[in-house]
Amino acid sequence: MSGNTFGTLFAVTNFGESHGPAIGCVIDGCPPGMSLSEADIQPDLDRRRPGTSKFVTQRNEPDAVQILSGVYEGKTTGTPICLLIHNTDQRSKDYGNIVQTFRPGHADYAYFQKYGIRDPRGGGRSSARLTAPMVAAGAVAKKWLFEKYGTTFRGCMTQVGELPVAFESWEHVPNNPFFAPVADVSALEDYMAALRKDGDSCGARLRVSASNVPVGLGEPLFDKMDADIAYAMMGINAVKGVEIGAGFACVAQRGSTHGDSLTPQGFASNNAGGTLGGITSGQDLEVSVAIKPTSSILTPRQSIDTSGAPMEVITKGRHDPCVGIRATPILEAMLALVVMEHALRQRAQCGDVAVSLAPIKASV
Amino acid sequence: MSGNTFGTLFAVTNFGESHGPAIGCVIDGCPPGMSLSEADIQPDLDRRRPGTSKFVTQRNEPDAVQILSGVYEGKTTGTPICLLIHNTDQRSKDYGNIVQTFRPGHADYAYFQKYGIRDPRGGGRSSARLTAPMVAAGAVAKKWLFEKYGTTFRGCMTQVGELPVAFESWEHVPNNPFFAPVADVSALEDYMAALRKDGDSCGARLRVSASNVPVGLGEPLFDKMDADIAYAMMGINAVKGVEIGAGFACVAQRGSTHGDSLTPQGFASNNAGGTLGGITSGQDLEVSVAIKPTSSILTPRQSIDTSGAPMEVITKGRHDPCVGIRATPILEAMLALVVMEHALRQRAQCGDVAVSLAPIKASV
Amino acid sequence: MSGNTFGTLFAVTNFGESHGPAIGCVIDGCPPGMSLSEADIQPDLDRRRPGTSKFVTQRNEPDAVQILSGVYEGKTTGTPICLLIHNTDQRSKDYGNIVQTFRPGHADYAYFQKYGIRDPRGGGRSSARLTAPMVAAGAVAKKWLFEKYGTTFRGCMTQVGELPVAFESWEHVPNNPFFAPVADVSALEDYMAALRKDGDSCGARLRVSASNVPVGLGEPLFDKMDADIAYAMMGINAVKGVEIGAGFACVAQRGSTHGDSLTPQGFASNNAGGTLGGITSGQDLEVSVAIKPTSSILTPRQSIDTSGAPMEVITKGRHDPCVGIRATPILEAMLALVVMEHALRQRAQCGDVAVSLAPIKASV
Amino acid sequence: MSGNTFGTLFAVTNFGESHGPAIGCVIDGCPPGMSLSEADIQPDLDRRRPGTSKFVTQRNEPDAVQILSGVYEGKTTGTPICLLIHNTDQRSKDYGNIVQTFRPGHADYAYFQKYGIRDPRGGGRSSARLTAPMVAAGAVAKKWLFEKYGTTFRGCMTQVGELPVAFESWEHVPNNPFFAPVADVSALEDYMAALRKDGDSCGARLRVSASNVPVGLGEPLFDKMDADIAYAMMGINAVKGVEIGAGFACVAQRGSTHGDSLTPQGFASNNAGGTLGGITSGQDLEVSVAIKPTSSILTPRQSIDTSGAPMEVITKGRHDPCVGIRATPILEAMLALVVMEHALRQRAQCGDVAVSLAPIKASV
Repeated sequence: MSGNTFGTLFAVTNFGESHGPAIGCVIDGCPPGMSLSEADIQPDLDRRRPGTSKFVTQRNEPDAVQILSGVYEGKTTGTPICLLIHNTDQRSKDYGNIVQTFRPGHADYAYFQKYGIRDPRGGGRSSARLTAPMVAAGAVAKKWLFEKYGTTFRGCMTQVGELPVAFESWEHVPNNPFFAPVADVSALEDYMAALRKDGDSCGARLRVSASNVPVGLGEPLFDKMDADIAYAMMGINAVKGVEIGAGFACVAQRGSTHGDSLTPQGFASNNAGGTLGGITSGQDLEVSVAIKPTSSILTPRQSIDTSGAPMEVITKGRHDPCVGIRATPILEAMLALVVMEHALRQRAQCGDVAVSLAPIKASV
Repeated sequence: MSGNTFGTLFAVTNFGESHGPAIGCVIDGCPPGMSLSEADIQPDLDRRRPGTSKFVTQRNEPDAVQILSGVYEGKTTGTPICLLIHNTDQRSKDYGNIVQTFRPGHADYAYFQKYGIRDPRGGGRSSARLTAPMVAAGAVAKKWLFEKYGTTFRGCMTQVGELPVAFESWEHVPNNPFFAPVADVSALEDYMAALRKDGDSCGARLRVSASNVPVGLGEPLFDKMDADIAYAMMGINAVKGVEIGAGFACVAQRGSTHGDSLTPQGFASNNAGGTLGGITSGQDLEVSVAIKPTSSILTPRQSIDTSGAPMEVITKGRHDPCVGIRATPILEAMLALVVMEHALRQRAQCGDVAVSLAPIKASV
Repeated sequence: MSGNTFGTLFAVTNFGESHGPAIGCVIDGCPPGMSLSEADIQPDLDRRRPGTSKFVTQRNEPDAVQILSGVYEGKTTGTPICLLIHNTDQRSKDYGNIVQTFRPGHADYAYFQKYGIRDPRGGGRSSARLTAPMVAAGAVAKKWLFEKYGTTFRGCMTQVGELPVAFESWEHVPNNPFFAPVADVSALEDYMAALRKDGDSCGARLRVSASNVPVGLGEPLFDKMDADIAYAMMGINAVKGVEIGAGFACVAQRGSTHGDSLTPQGFASNNAGGTLGGITSGQDLEVSVAIKPTSSILTPRQSIDTSGAPMEVITKGRHDPCVGIRATPILEAMLALVVMEHALRQRAQCGDVAVSLAPIKASV
Repeated sequence: MSGNTFGTLFAVTNFGESHGPAIGCVIDGCPPGMSLSEADIQPDLDRRRPGTSKFVTQRNEPDAVQILSGVYEGKTTGTPICLLIHNTDQRSKDYGNIVQTFRPGHADYAYFQKYGIRDPRGGGRSSARLTAPMVAAGAVAKKWLFEKYGTTFRGCMTQVGELPVAFESWEHVPNNPFFAPVADVSALEDYMAALRKDGDSCGARLRVSASNVPVGLGEPLFDKMDADIAYAMMGINAVKGVEIGAGFACVAQRGSTHGDSLTPQGFASNNAGGTLGGITSGQDLEVSVAIKPTSSILTPRQSIDTSGAPMEVITKGRHDPCVGIRATPILEAMLALVVMEHALRQRAQCGDVAVSLAPIKASV
């Protein structure tokens, strides 16, 4: 109810602040009997980790995850899995100058209004650092979904600031710090270098998709797969837009074009992005998100302090100039959590589904 | 859990099918002591009602709402409010030809896969008709929010198919069947006439906003105001994209431009769309959605039947060629339900808020 | 959240007031494909119906249930099932004299304090009449559980006022208006006749049990089967005590006696009442409840009015002198709803269970 | 959904196992601005702590609580509060002999059936040790309720095995290891000594109550205050019966006796136990629970192993011969969590209540 638990059957409760002693989550509802260790979770955390290139925040966090409960002799027991990540590189003094002021575009104004109190150290609870436990939880969901259904998740950068990133191949994604599906990222490097020189930040557009998704997941009215995906993505820091399948392009499409034809060999296209009426069709889930530019920048901005007096704000400290760069593993994790939740719901309501038709994929 | 209840503190449980005896909803959590009668709800239902212009389905439904419970001597009692709307113009035979086939782009394939059974009459549960109870519930939320905080909701069409609709003034919206904010809708009429002649359908883009929104609503991590708005919008039939504030345009913005400056007189802009860190800032909530073209069209489409054999599908019967035309009241209702839910949550957690700063609005 | 929905995976949302136009419920989460008609539900409603003997309220309600949604061609579709029961014998004037006063032991004082408004007609929302929709929903759960697992539910009266009712046989229960497991109910009739003559009311003790309960249902910490049963029973009007298995008798038992021995042929006893550590063992669930005496009695009572002034209250009108008499079908229904909920949860979390040991029953 | 979270507005998610590295909980929904430190929580944990007398388990656990999040400069921020308690005195070898067998009356049979796997070390998740985080969370709720409404909680032992403990005074409770409201506990000591000599265990009956409870808390239908109390109490290990107010004694009461008269000076009695129609009346909440005898005893018992073969079980290791002895702080904590949850709900729905009548207390 207070917005720190994601999901109900596979429920992930997130806790912690950017500069507190630790962050983490409790997963409640993981099916028993799956083998699980820290080694299954750490790789995704490492993909999201700060400090790995000069284009992201230089905060140095190993983000080493520890399983505190829910696993016995290497297997999940069906009881809550607590995942703990210690904070090791807090420098709260970096933020001393913003305690009494509000950064334009930052959460600190709204937090102050909501609670009358806020933890200003590193953004406190509003820090993107709190996505780390979700990446950890997502890794658990990914493992179960892969072992059970062969479901896989992947994502990539499709635009940085004004610079579109044309899709070349998934295989390039792990080979550059931008999660860009291109062989040559020099244009991206130049773009980011210029941005940094300007003391400014930029937005990004990312794509995330899932393959081998069981058919029949999602609920018809409110908990549509589309709705829960949108909810999950908009729950990620800085996301301001979400599309499923053709997304906003469908506005200008005609029904005769948009509706994906069915053939005995499969769907002929995937404008729907893997859902029909809010329920998975067995096609790939295709999602696109818009991430806004970071609000913590060196460029001076007009603002007010807590007394309402005007002032100028400059944010020093360690910040990502484009939070979209490290966001791909987060998107994958959130999508995995949505699919996981609905897979369990489908088991509850329909008993793992007596599927009368095989799921069919777009031939393309 | 099965996706038919929206909200938790102001929980709306929706029931019914397009061609069953009745549709409706149960509102649980409406605060006691508010005056309420059918006359408070009917106007919004009338705005959404089918059969009111030649550009929408000709199904003739009065959509007369009846309050079955929760009101005593004209006032809400704090107990569940059941709202009932009888279906009066079902023509199930219209749909006889689609029982064994799947319309491209339609929910019927996914329903069949999920449940192994579906009610094909008028789309059954997947019909956009099920938005009527939400419009009714939204009217109750709107009334409470207006009386308590002065909050208001409005929306309009901003694009139909390839045709953008430039914003002129809110005052035009009630004066044409498109909810278009323009004085002259002849171009829209021509566009729709041509579409109808082609036996095809088109998408639409709509805007919805809320003014005088209390500051501090929304939760920091998952139940961000943005996330719950996205969830609400994507729960509306045919919605495939959602933006808050600048939305996808923020990708190409720099931080120095995107972040809305604060001044003693108010915010200087509203790129954020009324939320900061997922929490309302007191600025107008600004939302934009993409609605896909209707899948039920006269144009023949390639498909399969329930045995997997190829066939051609044509959908006769009464359908909206552009479901976006009647969607504005639905968007308003869903946005009102989200704000209502969070207003009650804020009362729970923070006790109606000791606001230390006045909410400030964009000077523009 | 506002206390009118029971369950989450098999969620029953109840609405209506004693003297409003109708009462009913919406069941969300019923698995698809089960045959269902009003005829499956009406018999349990008839067992609970008022006016069937001189020992219960003379209000004459047929309690005819109507299925408004969720069933297509005689089968459940997986979408919400709305069950409607019209009120036909309201006599609101019966209650005119209690609008400004509070009956000792009655909900009306607390409602007034909570909401600042109450519907006084027949107790409004606090009326035991609101158990009728639960009996209807319970009939749906019973049907599914019986068809799926062979689970059955039954209950009986075990004490009326000071008069214990010794258990003779289940077969007597349907043959008398008290749901008493005895052949000769003349002592009960005499007791109730004397009570009526005194213008007073009495309490009752009832037993309810379930057989062929799947093993492994219930959650280890909070949603123990015991906890959810207690919650369900205490949600029934007038219930003030709940026991599982040996219940309060276990206080004086030693561990060597209380713990039910396991043998290859089954458990040797059932002090646990069918649960171990909050999880079903496969033994019969055994529950006992205490029902308080009705507060609406002819005997004059000392009270106050809404201004706080002292006064004497006498409650005329049609009331049950012992609400326990008609409570057996309600207890069965609530127990069925709890088992149903947990059966679906178990499917979600453990996939209908790879049971490595056969459930074993008490040899007695 | 999986039974490890208690409450929704004040939601406590519990994690850990008896012999894992740590146990703890995450509180989501604590109102912001309350001063809080470990020193506010530790005293209640110390009251529940094992090893403090010869009548309880000799496991030596300091149960030192650490606040990991949600507090900034000594005040709650409205974000999740993670409370961590390290396990320090695990001796897993103590339990080696019970891995393949099932103790009569113990959870291990049901866990094995449910999950197909279980953590046998110290009972794993079924250990009463998992009540420690609830005592910690309850201390936070108690503090808020006391500061806001002056609400207080207290409990005591009222029976041990066959030995009733007559109530003398609350002041004796902290002065003996039994939480007994009597000056002289020698009879209790003798009883426990004899029990220990027999290698057996016994049950207990406890009372818990709350004073200065706000009026109007609880929901009318299912989330009655009674129902949520029953749910909370039955969620405590070994509890098999719950009573509110007169409880089972109300069966033999007449309505003219049971219903508590109202006078301008207050209620004349408290048979209702502080609730009317499921809603608090402002009188003291009065609850009584039955706790079963521990299943881990030295007395040999007939049982089976995981292959179904008969065998004899003896449980060595460190166990409480009467888990009721240390249960009082747990009951208080659970009652506090229920009241806290409903206080927040009442704020949500009714805005902290415009109470038109002062709550009135029983004159006795």
